[in-house]
Amino acid sequence: MDFDISPKQRVFLDRVTAFMDEHVYPAIPAYEAEMNVLGAERWKVVQVLEELKKKAKAEGLWNFFMPPHSGQTHVDDTFQFEGEQLTNLEYSLIAEHMGKVGFASEVFNCSAPDTGNMEVLMRYGTLAQKERWLRPLMNGEIRSAFLMTEPAVASSDATNIETRIERDGDDYVINGRKWWSSGVGDPRCKVAIVMGKTDPTASPHSQQSQVLVPLDAPGIEIVRMLPVFGYDDAPHGHAEVILKDVRVPVEEGLLLGEGRGFEIAQGRLGPGRIHHCMRTIGAAEVALEKMIKRLMTRKAFGKYLSDHSVWEQRIAEARIDIEMCRLLCLKAADMMDKAGNKSARLEIAMIKVAAPRIALKVIDDAIQAHGGAGVTTDFGLAKLYAGIRTLRLADGPDEVHCRTIARMEMSKYGDLAYKQKAERDAALHVPGIR
Amino acid sequence: MDFDISPKQRVFLDRVTAFMDEHVYPAIPAYEAEMNVLGAERWKVVQVLEELKKKAKAEGLWNFFMPPHSGQTHVDDTFQFEGEQLTNLEYSLIAEHMGKVGFASEVFNCSAPDTGNMEVLMRYGTLAQKERWLRPLMNGEIRSAFLMTEPAVASSDATNIETRIERDGDDYVINGRKWWSSGVGDPRCKVAIVMGKTDPTASPHSQQSQVLVPLDAPGIEIVRMLPVFGYDDAPHGHAEVILKDVRVPVEEGLLLGEGRGFEIAQGRLGPGRIHHCMRTIGAAEVALEKMIKRLMTRKAFGKYLSDHSVWEQRIAEARIDIEMCRLLCLKAADMMDKAGNKSARLEIAMIKVAAPRIALKVIDDAIQAHGGAGVTTDFGLAKLYAGIRTLRLADGPDEVHCRTIARMEMSKYGDLAYKQKAERDAALHVPGIR
Amino acid sequence: MDFDISPKQRVFLDRVTAFMDEHVYPAIPAYEAEMNVLGAERWKVVQVLEELKKKAKAEGLWNFFMPPHSGQTHVDDTFQFEGEQLTNLEYSLIAEHMGKVGFASEVFNCSAPDTGNMEVLMRYGTLAQKERWLRPLMNGEIRSAFLMTEPAVASSDATNIETRIERDGDDYVINGRKWWSSGVGDPRCKVAIVMGKTDPTASPHSQQSQVLVPLDAPGIEIVRMLPVFGYDDAPHGHAEVILKDVRVPVEEGLLLGEGRGFEIAQGRLGPGRIHHCMRTIGAAEVALEKMIKRLMTRKAFGKYLSDHSVWEQRIAEARIDIEMCRLLCLKAADMMDKAGNKSARLEIAMIKVAAPRIALKVIDDAIQAHGGAGVTTDFGLAKLYAGIRTLRLADGPDEVHCRTIARMEMSKYGDLAYKQKAERDAALHVPGIR
Amino acid sequence: MDFDISPKQRVFLDRVTAFMDEHVYPAIPAYEAEMNVLGAERWKVVQVLEELKKKAKAEGLWNFFMPPHSGQTHVDDTFQFEGEQLTNLEYSLIAEHMGKVGFASEVFNCSAPDTGNMEVLMRYGTLAQKERWLRPLMNGEIRSAFLMTEPAVASSDATNIETRIERDGDDYVINGRKWWSSGVGDPRCKVAIVMGKTDPTASPHSQQSQVLVPLDAPGIEIVRMLPVFGYDDAPHGHAEVILKDVRVPVEEGLLLGEGRGFEIAQGRLGPGRIHHCMRTIGAAEVALEKMIKRLMTRKAFGKYLSDHSVWEQRIAEARIDIEMCRLLCLKAADMMDKAGNKSARLEIAMIKVAAPRIALKVIDDAIQAHGGAGVTTDFGLAKLYAGIRTLRLADGPDEVHCRTIARMEMSKYGDLAYKQKAERDAALHVPGIR
Repeated sequence: MDFDISPKQRVFLDRVTAFMDEHVYPAIPAYEAEMNVLGAERWKVVQVLEELKKKAKAEGLWNFFMPPHSGQTHVDDTFQFEGEQLTNLEYSLIAEHMGKVGFASEVFNCSAPDTGNMEVLMRYGTLAQKERWLRPLMNGEIRSAFLMTEPAVASSDATNIETRIERDGDDYVINGRKWWSSGVGDPRCKVAIVMGKTDPTASPHSQQSQVLVPLDAPGIEIVRMLPVFGYDDAPHGHAEVILKDVRVPVEEGLLLGEGRGFEIAQGRLGPGRIHHCMRTIGAAEVALEKMIKRLMTRKAFGKYLSDHSVWEQRIAEARIDIEMCRLLCLKAADMMDKAGNKSARLEIAMIKVAAPRIALKVIDDAIQAHGGAGVTTDFGLAKLYAGIRTLRLADGPDEVHCRTIARMEMSKYGDLAYKQKAERDAALHVPGIR
Repeated sequence: MDFDISPKQRVFLDRVTAFMDEHVYPAIPAYEAEMNVLGAERWKVVQVLEELKKKAKAEGLWNFFMPPHSGQTHVDDTFQFEGEQLTNLEYSLIAEHMGKVGFASEVFNCSAPDTGNMEVLMRYGTLAQKERWLRPLMNGEIRSAFLMTEPAVASSDATNIETRIERDGDDYVINGRKWWSSGVGDPRCKVAIVMGKTDPTASPHSQQSQVLVPLDAPGIEIVRMLPVFGYDDAPHGHAEVILKDVRVPVEEGLLLGEGRGFEIAQGRLGPGRIHHCMRTIGAAEVALEKMIKRLMTRKAFGKYLSDHSVWEQRIAEARIDIEMCRLLCLKAADMMDKAGNKSARLEIAMIKVAAPRIALKVIDDAIQAHGGAGVTTDFGLAKLYAGIRTLRLADGPDEVHCRTIARMEMSKYGDLAYKQKAERDAALHVPGIR
Repeated sequence: MDFDISPKQRVFLDRVTAFMDEHVYPAIPAYEAEMNVLGAERWKVVQVLEELKKKAKAEGLWNFFMPPHSGQTHVDDTFQFEGEQLTNLEYSLIAEHMGKVGFASEVFNCSAPDTGNMEVLMRYGTLAQKERWLRPLMNGEIRSAFLMTEPAVASSDATNIETRIERDGDDYVINGRKWWSSGVGDPRCKVAIVMGKTDPTASPHSQQSQVLVPLDAPGIEIVRMLPVFGYDDAPHGHAEVILKDVRVPVEEGLLLGEGRGFEIAQGRLGPGRIHHCMRTIGAAEVALEKMIKRLMTRKAFGKYLSDHSVWEQRIAEARIDIEMCRLLCLKAADMMDKAGNKSARLEIAMIKVAAPRIALKVIDDAIQAHGGAGVTTDFGLAKLYAGIRTLRLADGPDEVHCRTIARMEMSKYGDLAYKQKAERDAALHVPGIR
Repeated sequence: MDFDISPKQRVFLDRVTAFMDEHVYPAIPAYEAEMNVLGAERWKVVQVLEELKKKAKAEGLWNFFMPPHSGQTHVDDTFQFEGEQLTNLEYSLIAEHMGKVGFASEVFNCSAPDTGNMEVLMRYGTLAQKERWLRPLMNGEIRSAFLMTEPAVASSDATNIETRIERDGDDYVINGRKWWSSGVGDPRCKVAIVMGKTDPTASPHSQQSQVLVPLDAPGIEIVRMLPVFGYDDAPHGHAEVILKDVRVPVEEGLLLGEGRGFEIAQGRLGPGRIHHCMRTIGAAEVALEKMIKRLMTRKAFGKYLSDHSVWEQRIAEARIDIEMCRLLCLKAADMMDKAGNKSARLEIAMIKVAAPRIALKVIDDAIQAHGGAGVTTDFGLAKLYAGIRTLRLADGPDEVHCRTIARMEMSKYGDLAYKQKAERDAALHVPGIR
């Protein structure tokens, strides 16, 4: 065990934070100016961002998210790409810093949902699929979406999903209604991975498949963009999408194999979740910093707010919670690197629950510290709250992850046989000091 | 003591809820259609609302908020107005129901900040001021604003306020920057009550005065409308306002007397705060109802969400908290009626802290129950959350009210002499079972 | 609705608090001196208490707990007793004050579990049963126990209970193991009401009966007294009891009728629960008072602890929570008086959950305010915490009451038919601002 | 960074847990039998424990707590002792396991307050002091106490301490009243380190000195043993002690130097605190295990309690919280090893606050899961709760540690100059998305 930052972590952390200080933070006003438009104009390519991407790529600060040797089953040695492959652990602290500015992840080509889609393509895509979609994604030329959640059912239970992917000759024909299809608002978004049932009669976890669908395919209709607490999250956005008789050739579309959609989802969701958690910790740090600065510069009842002890307690609790949360996130990342995403699923579930819970508390306190300025635009705190609040639902609500954690915990204590034995023991009422 | 609803409460409660069922709820789609516009068009008179107001007024469901015999010092017997004057207690349950629909209070001419302004005008206005401003307000013809909070200082400590109201001949000349000036976005908003310092050298609570200012006076600039989370709260809205050399004749403008602004504020804020609390309880009821309906109609892991016991606990906690909160609100209203707003200030402070705290918990659980639908527009829950979140700050942050409550509590135990005696007692370490 | 204390409430509240100030508080040191003994000697009649009882009875401050006209089905007009019958509402504030001193309820013959047993005997007892047991109980000459909970099963689900009451000729033969049989440690405890199954084959709620059992009956063995945290709660105490072939004549023992034990339990538990809640509020008040006094008399870092704002927040939250809780308790009492115990079961369940939850928070804060003195004997706070902590379990754990509350709440929204309709509505995604 | 258990950690962890499985757990009934006595007999040497100590020492499982190279300033190379010196990080997981059984730490000669005293003697003691006191302590032949806290003042602010250590010729004469002097009840307890003021006129942090005092010195009176929530914690116990004209020769008594008591305290408290935290995590694990086993073996309403989802949530939250807490504890230990106790004081303060907070939540849930069995003796949970509750006060209350954390956090943002600059920035209302 060792809690020190490794030399490699340090090098990339320093390079990324230096790049952010030099290029990203100073670009915020220009980014906001470009986005200071209304209505349909908001769904556009932001030039400031494209320029930042070029710079980051030129410096080799690119594609950090793709871990080496992460158990790919379909990697083709001929598929090479630009950028620096870091382990999940090495990537963690960097991603945390990216989480401090809303658009920073994209600067380094590390933004959701592309990262998850790219990892899926890397692991399960054919060479043709890779060249067509993964190549431009890794180059930052296009963006992508992941269409899983549906408005009509509790999608936290993936067996509920109703979208149909039916075979018709050499094509799949897709029908369904999806929502929270993030990134669809972006004009660069060219492809979606769609999850649906190819065989509703199969066993529950073999009914689903995942299929690549070009977003310009006939039959795809964007019904509306979904606001989050009043924010449109443009130019990225979250869409409600209808797929009506959408056709894709099986060979071009199918990932991994029919009935293996659930299996892909399980591998995909781990990294996606932990990346969100890393960034969430960065968001919490931002909120804490803003909170303290505000408290140190406002006076009430004759002294700085920071000198009122109620705020000492809140600052301390925030620092404790953030610190614990970061460690859990790092440990989960380390387990993913060493034991694989599947073995780390307890740790991933834990950090998935912990990170937004903790960050929301910090942000809410920061809002309170800012008074009216906290709930409006000026310090970005209300928007931060809204964004993080969705993470208690995205990729599965807390309750489902807690269920997973509890079941793994209970499994330590075995089966009914154990229960019956324990029942007898308990009946004896053996007192104990342990 | 009697916890039954009185016959008079019952009559008006029934009439108001019947009116809401018959007219208000069915008008929601039309209201939303009218507001389904972008940008500057959103700051307008909503026709649906005007029609509802006419109907309510015709049925005598109007101006309920103005309690009879509430200690007015300047009431002129010649000032008569339409509507039914209810006690605070009688008004409470009605206001709760109004809180269930965002625009319902205005239908009955009971919406903030007009109610507070009307009560101030009734108590402290001259007959001329009443005829000019109170008359059209009571008729629902115009709206009004209250300009107190300032962006540059912690306004929770009212002595911090920096706006200057300087005498120049028979005029006041006003300079300052205000924000969270609610209602200014509405084209019908014609007058503001402005709080500022007429004598910064006086003792802390005699420096301030309140002055009526027509909103078309030269020198008033609306800098921007402040979003709440991502919502603009149109057509009402919250403005940041600059007052630059704004002139009003002293006789037309001054309320009650120079240096008495703090005194007015104290009387004004009580009813305003409790009205918000009443409506907040209604909002919590709405959230609980939506939560339960959702849970009863969605399945995961083989059963309705409502059959998962974690939700039983949350529903029960919501019901308990709402019930306790309502009772505290009713008791505070009863005290205001019987002992006056000032004597009820402990109870008002308590409900001011309790109501948003409790409602936010319920709404947040409701959001969680709705999954992705909770954080977007479809069920109105995210907007409800945003609106109620501001109430932990508006009219003073929780911390300031808790300070008030704690100080009143501590005052029961006397002064330093007590402290010293108690210190001696404590030194004896008398054990006790009480 | 009226939140004022009624004249009758005021009279008895004043008389009881005066009696407590004059007689009860001053007797605490003598009580403690008498109890300052070890081991078996602690299970005794405390003389100080007997003298206080005489005084209270002489002043007519006696048997307040027995509400008039409370729906007795077996009351015999010939059964008269001493004391003042108050409604539940009138009794509430008095009971709160009794809750401030551990032994005060008994001074006024209002202590658990006797009150519940007396009410059961009054309602369901035969005249002979009343003369034998109710008479001396109402006179404060003997005490009684209620044997329901069992160590071997989750007794929160009463259908789990395993004790058998089998008919053998004119006798019942009882076999079982009970625990948390409160009051059994007291030498004056002469009779128990025992709940058990007379017919395990009947429908779940008709299997149980309640039977009066003299505590000197052969076959009753007190296995041990159960500590609560580290307190023995002498001289009252909580026992684990084995009943082995205990015989009682059916006519002497049976209450109400065979198979009606569940029905009795439901009627019994309401008053018992709310009495505990009333006293719990008193306990919270005691803790808050001690907390404030401590904070006002200790200094750290240059000022009184009460001047550190973190304590302002805690004091305020305590006051808010206590106030809300008291109101809910009073409302529940009022409903019991007006609509009967059964109709008030939602309110009773709510206060049963709320009161200990709130009191434990206040007591825990008070402990924290006292430093090391909080966790030891000197201020009685640790003992108070331990006692109240049991109330989250006694008479049913929180979770079971929350389940009840949630189910009543859900029942407002009807059956599956509703669900299906709502499902269709939800499918339409009608956005709404309410 | 590396979250894997190192080979050395693994070896000792395996050896200690094997020893505990083989010897410690099986000895619990004998230990309890020996302690099943009343009154004065409880303050004795427990034979079971002495035998376990011999075994552990023979296996080299001894004195783990004393880290190598921990910055001793007075270490004499000639002072050798038995046992295995582990780093704080290596010791952490072992100490956690010791925390699972109340008396286990002592088995390995790693129990408080001896460990802290031994570390102080090792660092600051003269060779004579070491031979007289440290030698038998390291051998497990005697025990020791630390007399710091006082009943008459808020000892969380160490400048409040009133005990006087006055020079009289070659002696110190000590007068004062101490409490929470842990371990004084043990007949083997032979020496105390006493903190008091040698020069009340010096600067606040130079007034205090620490002095070794044999417990059989004339003038030492044990006033009483302090119960914790009703538990006497025999045979160890916590005493209130009066020192009246207690004399010790300066040369024998003084540690490090006059006026350096505060400095010693700061170095001492770090390890003491983190050891408690390590054990607290073990206690939380015990509670979680008991909770799950209970839930898996009790049925209510037709299914195991573990199948009610409310318990899934609580189990998951417990697992998350424990995991985060353990990581923070390990990180703090690692920092102490690498950067010294003083540099790790932020991390130590954080874990000091976090560990009891988290453990109390888990234990309280475990109590709730056990029903009535939770609050009594049978599963040891109530006693566990009581013991851990004291840790929110011992070695400084949460509030003081939070104050420290907050101040270190605020110090990142500089001095008043910063404040003023920030004030100007804030005045500009620069909106930002970060």
